[in-house]
Amino acid sequence: MYHAKVVVTLRRSILDPQGKAVEHGIHTLGHEAVENVRIGKMVEMHIDVASRDEAERIAKDAAGKLLANPVMEDFHVTVEKVG
Amino acid sequence: MYHAKVVVTLRRSILDPQGKAVEHGIHTLGHEAVENVRIGKMVEMHIDVASRDEAERIAKDAAGKLLANPVMEDFHVTVEKVG
Repeated sequence: MYHAKVVVTLRRSILDPQGKAVEHGIHTLGHEAVENVRIGKMVEMHIDVASRDEAERIAKDAAGKLLANPVMEDFHVTVEKVG
Repeated sequence: MYHAKVVVTLRRSILDPQGKAVEHGIHTLGHEAVENVRIGKMVEMHIDVASRDEAERIAKDAAGKLLANPVMEDFHVTVEKVG
């Protein structure tokens, strides 16, 4: 059994209005030193297969076909053994 | 300058219907081995302060007061030096 984490982020060249809104909120808390806030998604899953390679292949396939929009987003997959 | 990453996840005891929907989608791709899909948020930011401790303090304050819902969510902060 493996635990996979897929982090999906907007490409650097794409404006992130949600991030801008959060940045404004953080400034309102008094933290003016915060900038370049960007919001991404993190999708975790368990994958019940025998090898790390197979788990990584499945997580990358799911990320590329379902979790990330290839036009606007990048993704990064990490896999670790559990249980 | 520091780069902080805040990962916000639903507590284990809270049902994640969005995760269930994504899990169903992944199964439809043919990956039946995938289970326990959970969706979280990842918020990245630059923090222009002199010390790592100060950057971590700011990121944790923003996470606890603004980014995470303390009733339903946990958060994890990582900070690394950049630039």
